[in-house]
Amino acid sequence: MDHSADRTTFKRHSSLSTLVAHFFGILAVILMLIWLLHYREGIEYGSDNPLKVLNVHPFLMYCGFLFLVGQAMMMYKTAYASHQVQKMVHGGLHLIGLVLGIVGICAAFRFHDKLNLKNMVSLHSWIGLTTFILLGLQWLLGAFTFLAPQSSSGTRTRMMPSHVLGGRALLYMGIVAALTGLAQRATMLGQSTNAESRLINFTGLAILLFGVSVDFSVALGRYN
Amino acid sequence: MDHSADRTTFKRHSSLSTLVAHFFGILAVILMLIWLLHYREGIEYGSDNPLKVLNVHPFLMYCGFLFLVGQAMMMYKTAYASHQVQKMVHGGLHLIGLVLGIVGICAAFRFHDKLNLKNMVSLHSWIGLTTFILLGLQWLLGAFTFLAPQSSSGTRTRMMPSHVLGGRALLYMGIVAALTGLAQRATMLGQSTNAESRLINFTGLAILLFGVSVDFSVALGRYN
Repeated sequence: MDHSADRTTFKRHSSLSTLVAHFFGILAVILMLIWLLHYREGIEYGSDNPLKVLNVHPFLMYCGFLFLVGQAMMMYKTAYASHQVQKMVHGGLHLIGLVLGIVGICAAFRFHDKLNLKNMVSLHSWIGLTTFILLGLQWLLGAFTFLAPQSSSGTRTRMMPSHVLGGRALLYMGIVAALTGLAQRATMLGQSTNAESRLINFTGLAILLFGVSVDFSVALGRYN
Repeated sequence: MDHSADRTTFKRHSSLSTLVAHFFGILAVILMLIWLLHYREGIEYGSDNPLKVLNVHPFLMYCGFLFLVGQAMMMYKTAYASHQVQKMVHGGLHLIGLVLGIVGICAAFRFHDKLNLKNMVSLHSWIGLTTFILLGLQWLLGAFTFLAPQSSSGTRTRMMPSHVLGGRALLYMGIVAALTGLAQRATMLGQSTNAESRLINFTGLAILLFGVSVDFSVALGRYN
């Protein structure tokens, strides 16, 4: 089999994975909004209702943070622009995601404060905050290595594999954080076979499949 | 930088990741045993105590299934043996893991039956069973493609990228399944800052870091 046929196949599969990622990514956004706005209390950071404040957390952590991180990972290759612009979009979307994520994390703390609950008790909170801090550090390291004009192309080539591997691990850690959060919330609401329970499960599955297809899109894109 | 220096670096980092994976993998086994034997009711499939039956589930799904799957993934490259033996070890360990996993899944169903609880209600159960079935199919496809003497080397080369990508996604999906299960159980037991809660969190973190370092070990090993 000749190598160019290989490359074409990988490229086609990468584009297909990107499409699938968009489908599940947007599906998860829609399902989460139906959950939080229709079945739950709504989303409002400044509300006196602690549950409305709590709902800001899953909304911003997925629809704001994780969704944009996935988009940023794919756009490094797929954005129709010069490589320099692709890099700026990649870093810029991550930065927007991180800022929205900070607000989302504050919402969880604000909810705990309102009910005098302790912070950082659950497995979800441990994994979530660890992942978020590591992604912040990865962003800083990435900006200094790949965007700062001082860094040499040798440094960039040497750092690329660990940037890619680290990014992938952090994507999956983000997925783990999201799904442990959903599992915890669903358990608190009481496991049952009602419509809301199933909606939460489908939201979780969509987030998981978004993560997997982002990984496929990026990995197959790298074979090009 | 010359290419051979690159390869040496990747090889060294792959070995380091394997070592880290062993550390966190075995740490998680120890922490889980302390949890189930000391803080919980113990592990017994045939017990009249439903909770002893339930405890068989996390024990076999991590210490039996997921731990062996991770080992099998790393041993494809690291086992000191001929390539044919490496492949047999890789497939064989997966098979043992799958068999132990079936018993572990049966334990969860047996627990539900004893308490007249419905099966397949939680996000954890949806993700866990999906992952398990897909891994079973991946094993079958892998055996027919890479072990059966009839398949050509062209087929094997063509199938390898999807085998590797699929295997990695299933590893992370297994980690997600394990951690949603732990998060759900911890929530049911009541979130608190006591020793058991922290032990469950550390077990979850160790399982997550095991998964990430298996991914690193395999990915860096492939650059050799």
